[in-house]
Amino acid sequence: MTDMRAPVTMLGLGAMGRALAAALVDAGRDVTVWNRTPGKAGALVERGAVEAAGVRDAVSAGGPVVVCLYDHASVRETLDPVAAELRGRAVVNLTTTTPDEARELAKWADGHGIDYLDGAIMATPPMIGAPGAQILYSGSREVFDGHRALFEVWAACVYDGADAGTASLFDLAILAGMYPLFAGFLQGAATVRAAGGTAAEFAERAAPFLAAMTGSFSHIARTVDGGDYGDPVQSLDWTVAALDAIGRATREQGVEPVPTDMVGALVRAQTEAGRGAEDFYRIVEGMAGDRK
Amino acid sequence: MTDMRAPVTMLGLGAMGRALAAALVDAGRDVTVWNRTPGKAGALVERGAVEAAGVRDAVSAGGPVVVCLYDHASVRETLDPVAAELRGRAVVNLTTTTPDEARELAKWADGHGIDYLDGAIMATPPMIGAPGAQILYSGSREVFDGHRALFEVWAACVYDGADAGTASLFDLAILAGMYPLFAGFLQGAATVRAAGGTAAEFAERAAPFLAAMTGSFSHIARTVDGGDYGDPVQSLDWTVAALDAIGRATREQGVEPVPTDMVGALVRAQTEAGRGAEDFYRIVEGMAGDRK
Ligand SMILES: NC(=O)c1ccc[n+]([C@@H]2O[C@H](COP(=O)([O-])OP(=O)(O)OC[C@H]3O[C@@H](n4cnc5c(N)ncnc54)[C@H](OP(=O)(O)O)[C@@H]3O)[C@@H](O)[C@H]2O)c1
Ligand SMILES: NC(=O)c1ccc[n+]([C@@H]2O[C@H](COP(=O)([O-])OP(=O)(O)OC[C@H]3O[C@@H](n4cnc5c(N)ncnc54)[C@H](OP(=O)(O)O)[C@@H]3O)[C@@H](O)[C@H]2O)c1
Repeated sequence: MTDMRAPVTMLGLGAMGRALAAALVDAGRDVTVWNRTPGKAGALVERGAVEAAGVRDAVSAGGPVVVCLYDHASVRETLDPVAAELRGRAVVNLTTTTPDEARELAKWADGHGIDYLDGAIMATPPMIGAPGAQILYSGSREVFDGHRALFEVWAACVYDGADAGTASLFDLAILAGMYPLFAGFLQGAATVRAAGGTAAEFAERAAPFLAAMTGSFSHIARTVDGGDYGDPVQSLDWTVAALDAIGRATREQGVEPVPTDMVGALVRAQTEAGRGAEDFYRIVEGMAGDRK
Repeated sequence: MTDMRAPVTMLGLGAMGRALAAALVDAGRDVTVWNRTPGKAGALVERGAVEAAGVRDAVSAGGPVVVCLYDHASVRETLDPVAAELRGRAVVNLTTTTPDEARELAKWADGHGIDYLDGAIMATPPMIGAPGAQILYSGSREVFDGHRALFEVWAACVYDGADAGTASLFDLAILAGMYPLFAGFLQGAATVRAAGGTAAEFAERAAPFLAAMTGSFSHIARTVDGGDYGDPVQSLDWTVAALDAIGRATREQGVEPVPTDMVGALVRAQTEAGRGAEDFYRIVEGMAGDRK
């Protein structure tokens, strides 16, 4: 059971740290905040947070210590000097890191008798506390269970197991979907704009369709996990033709189809290896070195 | 007003043509079907459709003629011999084409006194008649308005204007978002799998987040239409670092991060031109030749 009046410390008041702290203050938590550069806590203090002058001060407020800083190095720099004070305490690190960095910090924490939970925020600051936000956690199950009510103030939460690196692994894997999605959307926007339309009209039509397409991820995943690409929904040969048509029509508008050409190259590597009749999703094996 | 008992002809019974025809039969329409290779109409005929032996026969049933064939060439090949019979009739072409091909067919139709509406299906066959399916139309407004009730049997429908090429333009622009999304998702799946997880676990976490990200398209579009990248949500410099981290962690798992490296190259072209402090979305200008 989480005592909703129990204290919590927030280290880092960047855009994300401020959103996290504000949600806790609004939920009635007793929040102590610290930021390297002072002067960022103003609005939070007005709403009831306490600003600490230093990290040592901040963590002495008791309760779990939530860290949301720039990167792994800034977390080490901030926590190292107070390792002794953190013994027996819960540290929840929501800074974006690689899986290996998360594991390194978990090991460091273990060496100092600190309970470590890593988190990966799948949301932007305005999404915190609103529907659609998700935070993945991995590391100490005790910390996750013990402070779950706190985490639910921020977002839907998922526990991904004891390996502190897993949440980061899913995070970066999901971002590997997001950046190409954005780049592809921008190729489409450039094409529509070049033809005299607006990106806004395009966004209106593209958003519902592309959101619906995420509904096919579970089917794609079953194919990938099964490793059998012999019964294609869309064959590699068909996809080559479709991507060629998209590329031609995009170039006709004076736009360089970099994102779809990237997919075209992955697809062509498969067709050239004689697998044109297999499922398009087989490009996953190309990225994995075609060991299958 | 569409008379729901009025006849309609469907040319092409591939996977998509069959789904379209089945939805009309189920909606109680009087449907005449034709397919180049006979024997594909069995189940439809059992449900009440009439199979015609030839294209001339099929179109003589009256009402609008819906075409869903392999590609532009197969449409020309199929319609050319019956151009005279189609005078004064409505032809709705749902075959995937480029904008220029759609315009060419509209011109051909105009030359023969045929009312032409082009359509782009943003759905897979099982989605026809179910929520989430969308079909974009452009060309004859009269045909669109006159047969709207028919179109609504299949999917949500949007009229994109009198230029017959516009629906195809939006179609290919939207697919330019879909393929990179799938490729990026597959990069993530390969990474999670290499680390010992399953693509299914990954899909469960990725789908809600990536669906939610399509919610930012309208904001991205406002930035692109405004042409001002000076107030970034995410700067190009920051994005370079994020993509580098994703690339490193992906390679650590033995996976080649082709999709995110593609985005990295677009971003780096901007930072190397001294625009690192600007918004990530500025990569759209790179694809458009950086005329802005
Ligand atoms: N913003 C998002 O949309 C988003 C989404 C998901 C995850 N995240 C992750 O959340 C974390 C924070 O993001 P943000 O958007 O809040 O970033 P931000 O606005 O750039 O804030 C960075 C924070 O880190 C602090 N910092 C940097 N270097 C430091 C150091 N060496 N020692 C102590 N503090 C240091 C900064 O303090 P100063 O004020 O003193 O510079 C500031 O509080 C990042 O890991 C980010 O990847 C962000
Ligand atoms: N399936 C999808 O998920 C999907 C989604 C959106 C849009 N579309 C579009 O819908 C259209 C049809 O797709 P589909 O999935 O139904 O394809 P399909 O299953 O491959 O069927 C192709 C159809 O075209 C006919 N055809 C091919 N060449 C022809 C020719 N020269 N003359 C006359 N008929 C010819 C075929 O007849 P035979 O039986 O005689 O070969 C068959 O009926 C395509 O343009 C596709 O891009 C499909």
